[in-house]
Amino acid sequence: MTVDRILPSDEAYELLELVTELADRELAPKVGDFENRGVFPREVLRTLGRAGLLGLPYPEEHGGAAQPYEVYLQVLEILAGRWLAVAEAVSVHTLSCYPVATFGGERARRLLPDLLGGALLGAYCLSEPQGGSDAAALTTRARRDGGDYVVSGTKAWITHAGVADFYNVFCRTGGPGARGISCLLADANTPGIVPQTPERTMGLRSSPIAQIAFDEARVPADRLIGAEGEGFKIALSALDSGRLGIAACAVGLAQAALDYAVDYARQREQFGQPLIEFQGLGFLLADLATQVSAARALTLAAARLRDAGRPYSTEAAKAKLFATDTAMRVTTDAVQVLGGAGYVCDHPVERYMREAKVLQIVEGTNQIQRMVIARSLAR
Amino acid sequence: MTVDRILPSDEAYELLELVTELADRELAPKVGDFENRGVFPREVLRTLGRAGLLGLPYPEEHGGAAQPYEVYLQVLEILAGRWLAVAEAVSVHTLSCYPVATFGGERARRLLPDLLGGALLGAYCLSEPQGGSDAAALTTRARRDGGDYVVSGTKAWITHAGVADFYNVFCRTGGPGARGISCLLADANTPGIVPQTPERTMGLRSSPIAQIAFDEARVPADRLIGAEGEGFKIALSALDSGRLGIAACAVGLAQAALDYAVDYARQREQFGQPLIEFQGLGFLLADLATQVSAARALTLAAARLRDAGRPYSTEAAKAKLFATDTAMRVTTDAVQVLGGAGYVCDHPVERYMREAKVLQIVEGTNQIQRMVIARSLAR
Amino acid sequence: MTVDRILPSDEAYELLELVTELADRELAPKVGDFENRGVFPREVLRTLGRAGLLGLPYPEEHGGAAQPYEVYLQVLEILAGRWLAVAEAVSVHTLSCYPVATFGGERARRLLPDLLGGALLGAYCLSEPQGGSDAAALTTRARRDGGDYVVSGTKAWITHAGVADFYNVFCRTGGPGARGISCLLADANTPGIVPQTPERTMGLRSSPIAQIAFDEARVPADRLIGAEGEGFKIALSALDSGRLGIAACAVGLAQAALDYAVDYARQREQFGQPLIEFQGLGFLLADLATQVSAARALTLAAARLRDAGRPYSTEAAKAKLFATDTAMRVTTDAVQVLGGAGYVCDHPVERYMREAKVLQIVEGTNQIQRMVIARSLAR
Amino acid sequence: MTVDRILPSDEAYELLELVTELADRELAPKVGDFENRGVFPREVLRTLGRAGLLGLPYPEEHGGAAQPYEVYLQVLEILAGRWLAVAEAVSVHTLSCYPVATFGGERARRLLPDLLGGALLGAYCLSEPQGGSDAAALTTRARRDGGDYVVSGTKAWITHAGVADFYNVFCRTGGPGARGISCLLADANTPGIVPQTPERTMGLRSSPIAQIAFDEARVPADRLIGAEGEGFKIALSALDSGRLGIAACAVGLAQAALDYAVDYARQREQFGQPLIEFQGLGFLLADLATQVSAARALTLAAARLRDAGRPYSTEAAKAKLFATDTAMRVTTDAVQVLGGAGYVCDHPVERYMREAKVLQIVEGTNQIQRMVIARSLAR
Repeated sequence: MTVDRILPSDEAYELLELVTELADRELAPKVGDFENRGVFPREVLRTLGRAGLLGLPYPEEHGGAAQPYEVYLQVLEILAGRWLAVAEAVSVHTLSCYPVATFGGERARRLLPDLLGGALLGAYCLSEPQGGSDAAALTTRARRDGGDYVVSGTKAWITHAGVADFYNVFCRTGGPGARGISCLLADANTPGIVPQTPERTMGLRSSPIAQIAFDEARVPADRLIGAEGEGFKIALSALDSGRLGIAACAVGLAQAALDYAVDYARQREQFGQPLIEFQGLGFLLADLATQVSAARALTLAAARLRDAGRPYSTEAAKAKLFATDTAMRVTTDAVQVLGGAGYVCDHPVERYMREAKVLQIVEGTNQIQRMVIARSLAR
Repeated sequence: MTVDRILPSDEAYELLELVTELADRELAPKVGDFENRGVFPREVLRTLGRAGLLGLPYPEEHGGAAQPYEVYLQVLEILAGRWLAVAEAVSVHTLSCYPVATFGGERARRLLPDLLGGALLGAYCLSEPQGGSDAAALTTRARRDGGDYVVSGTKAWITHAGVADFYNVFCRTGGPGARGISCLLADANTPGIVPQTPERTMGLRSSPIAQIAFDEARVPADRLIGAEGEGFKIALSALDSGRLGIAACAVGLAQAALDYAVDYARQREQFGQPLIEFQGLGFLLADLATQVSAARALTLAAARLRDAGRPYSTEAAKAKLFATDTAMRVTTDAVQVLGGAGYVCDHPVERYMREAKVLQIVEGTNQIQRMVIARSLAR
Repeated sequence: MTVDRILPSDEAYELLELVTELADRELAPKVGDFENRGVFPREVLRTLGRAGLLGLPYPEEHGGAAQPYEVYLQVLEILAGRWLAVAEAVSVHTLSCYPVATFGGERARRLLPDLLGGALLGAYCLSEPQGGSDAAALTTRARRDGGDYVVSGTKAWITHAGVADFYNVFCRTGGPGARGISCLLADANTPGIVPQTPERTMGLRSSPIAQIAFDEARVPADRLIGAEGEGFKIALSALDSGRLGIAACAVGLAQAALDYAVDYARQREQFGQPLIEFQGLGFLLADLATQVSAARALTLAAARLRDAGRPYSTEAAKAKLFATDTAMRVTTDAVQVLGGAGYVCDHPVERYMREAKVLQIVEGTNQIQRMVIARSLAR
Repeated sequence: MTVDRILPSDEAYELLELVTELADRELAPKVGDFENRGVFPREVLRTLGRAGLLGLPYPEEHGGAAQPYEVYLQVLEILAGRWLAVAEAVSVHTLSCYPVATFGGERARRLLPDLLGGALLGAYCLSEPQGGSDAAALTTRARRDGGDYVVSGTKAWITHAGVADFYNVFCRTGGPGARGISCLLADANTPGIVPQTPERTMGLRSSPIAQIAFDEARVPADRLIGAEGEGFKIALSALDSGRLGIAACAVGLAQAALDYAVDYARQREQFGQPLIEFQGLGFLLADLATQVSAARALTLAAARLRDAGRPYSTEAAKAKLFATDTAMRVTTDAVQVLGGAGYVCDHPVERYMREAKVLQIVEGTNQIQRMVIARSLAR
């Protein structure tokens, strides 16, 4: 199905058309093979970079495309419908440019053209093996030594571990709690930064996720983003944006699953008529379509708040919660619509279902989103 | 809670502020009493008419306010949070102006200033006792006799029966099926138009709903709206707009229930702390808040399609389905948040819950919405 | 529909048949009128008492019928399908006999034949205006004075307030917390026991529920049930049984709503065929029927644990949670199946829906049930 | 957690204890490796056969254990908690003995000791590539030729394809529709019976599922089970039993996922306390535990109907629907409880989730179950 979108500019319509073509040509034919082999499509990311898709929401002066988040998220959505790992890579990369673009000093910002152009791929090192959802308790330490910070500790659940060119490393430069945390921008090839074996995961296998060991890794002091102690604030602020990205990925994945199920139900006949003519299945698909539309509308409404400079943190949490729960439900039911066929790897819906699960977990589990929302209600 | 809205004009911000004040002043203090007594607040409607709220989405040349549907719906939403019957009255009235405003000939349009100004209250006679969801099977007949149509039959589930000044009457002027149906605009005081005793209903008791018997009622032929045989097309087209109205009412009702539950949970203490601090309840409220935001976003997204002149029928059906299911869920859970207190009539949440149910039924049951959506997928 | 039941004895089959006849003859024709007028059917309770239905699960030596809980609950279920307030009255009465039957001394037990025979109707005074779900914090005090306890304080949400003949009063005889609470069996006509005006409630209107003020009410010391300080233990233990009773009521109510909706959907035609032939509605009804069967099976499984002398507290909480959530869902959807007809008071489904809500709240809200279950998992 | 079961005999308690030990010893340590490699554990099945677990519900005279279905299903449940593919193998095998045990002539029954003892493994060939849920439309033909039936056609979705020793083959011996279908018991090594390459599936990988091509395969005429034309009746009747088996597997899988999540939530700490102490997570786990208990109770209630010789077809459909939907929900949420850890293959919950999906599809998709239930309501 074609989604009927109202976009804020003619340029945005053109952008989405271009992205759709690119995704159909460069992503759709490759996803199956890369997911099977569990290989990261570094070259595909370079292609996206060359097409200007790795710095969409950033100012043109730094090499970005100055697109509103409302538009950027719909790009993510389209990419996610073809290859979730690539869309998530764009989201993670865009997120990993956020600290330097927003809080970085002049020197750090000089990296931006390379980051936003996709020459360098970024990653985001916040979680730790013991920390989980309690980010403020992180234990990776950075001590100042001459012109460097010397970083030691272990980060966990790092998307792009081992394939990124630079890492945003959140580490403790001060005392306990949120105020002791700082953000460093480290080159991936810094001695002492050692990505571990990637996790074997249920899905999203072309996207490496792993622990990274920091063993006395020296990061130049001018790679401190913001001031010492501002790391947690930066992390939270980036998370708000990141949640919108995941929400958009979820919408795209859900739409792809819905589209596939609808197509199947239109073509497959049982008891003498197309499946979709059976009201039992038709109503199920209608419910799924409604959920997907609601997820998209909620996500874009949150994005428009961000674009308007309004507070959007709570609405971003709602969008992330709702869109990813929607993706989980729609993909699970899409497998159901195909019946036995849905359970075999010949059709992409079983992959969609395996992929959807991760979206309920990353950028703050959906339990964390509920905490964020509940806190805003309690105020 | 204040909802953070992005509106298309400064005028719209002012309009919503005015409506909020008016609703707080004129609606909120009266709703309990009128609902208890089951009396229709005709005077309140006149007040709204004088404030210009009964013709919001129609052209200024006919006495309307030329507001986009996106804005009109948010007015409905605010009214519905104080008094659902009044918001529904505005929606029904607005709907009942739609045929004449959109399809009416020059003579019929001369009525518009009185309709849009609220001097005359309208109603909409489509359903019949046997027909239910199958509108195309209606049996009320109108035969041409001289300069009149002579109408006989029985209409059912007519909101504003007995209090309206004019009725849109959908009746059969031709053969069976959808193409034999025409639309007449009848004065309520036409001899032979006899509203029956209003139904006793679970809620929305200040809004009369009843059967209307048509017994050889003579309606002048120039009150035919559109051509003969166009009635069903007109009805469906009005329904699309009406569904958006019900969706907006549902969003407002759900928001009111959520706000009340949140306030209660912030103030009421148990086991030594406010209820809202218990994560079990906090997560429930977070889920409800997310649903309400999604319902609003989906409804307004559909409205923007309508405002942009795009097809919006399917999205209106999704909005009606999702928003009214949301209202049912949120109001039911709002009672739960209050516990025993929620079950007694001292608090409005039990009323909200009784009101929500009707929204899942009117303007096409939610099963009909699913049929509409499923059909659009099957195409 | 007839539910196919496997019962533990021939006697039980006969009992259920008798109860079905009695309920059809004595309850079904009266419920509408009593609910409308909000009058408690004291005489109906006497009839049930004469039929031996007010002491079913108690030993024959005390005037009970020595029926397993598994059987007693199915009696409640059948009654609840005709008149929830009566079934709840039986459940509350049975619960209010529990302390004396289980923990009472010899003197107190002499009351049992009158209690179990239905000559005297009981009630249960645990909740307080401020306490809500936190029963251990109750503040009603009883001080010893000669041969009496002198009770002062206010109880809230008391079913049968003003119509009961005796009250189980949980009050503080010692220090703060659970261990300072005792249970007294007070005659209703004791000076100083003053039932307040009954609450106006959304449903269950023939069952009075009100606050009771205790103003220096003197209760003879030999009406202490169990020892001083055992009151909270008694209350919790009675609650476990009471939860099974509410679960059974919920199953009966849900079954009645399902049956009514199914009958309607078989008879009502739309688009040329009975509603139930539309798969969209058929699937909905199938889901509801499945939920009802699951609720019954879960409730009876918990009852069999109780009958076998096994711990059953957690399973009773699950049954109460699941069955009452089921009743809420099934009754709400039953209204939907009838469409507009379901919203008017001519059909009982709107009443069922209003009644279902209270079941999610009484004997511990469903949030409290989740706390009970979660605690058992955490152990 | 230990499930507190009330069983009908001392022997049953012993049996379940034995099965638990066997499952812990023989299944739990092997499942990960076999699932990874996608290898069928033929030897494990032999071990189960030697332990007497492959003919539990059949008469002792034929080598069965004469256990009620209520007990047999709890054996399946325990096996499924350790290794779903093995439990499903037991269920499929038991199902594939059903036609010959129930409808087979004397000669065919002579095979029973070998079948029930597990020397020979069975399979069940009903579905076809085009047929899907519409079994009565099957096109595989068997024509009589001398003392043989000669079978041609293709069967699909055959569990145990290529590893079974015998196949129940449902094929058309007569005209179109249900009455033209017969059931043959074919040796797997019959020339012309050619299992195809197993499907690559999302889960349950140690259980081969594949198409089987029948190319003029000759099956001796005395291997006809029942009379010609009785095949569809036999198939449906076996399906009723098979659905109970799948329901039990789903209960076991859901219980295993719940147990794992609860254990994790008790041990894993966040923000300074075990996860399970957070009410948000505690309530989630309470809901899951309630669903699992309800699924078990519903399944066993249906089994007791079967054991009592009552009609149980509708209740079996409800149990299959409810239990497998429960398994899908519980396993998906179990992954969520573990967060990122749940998404990696180090923990079994991601496997549980992939496995759960197939249960909603096999032995009639859950849409087919709803059709069965709806039809029973419409009667």
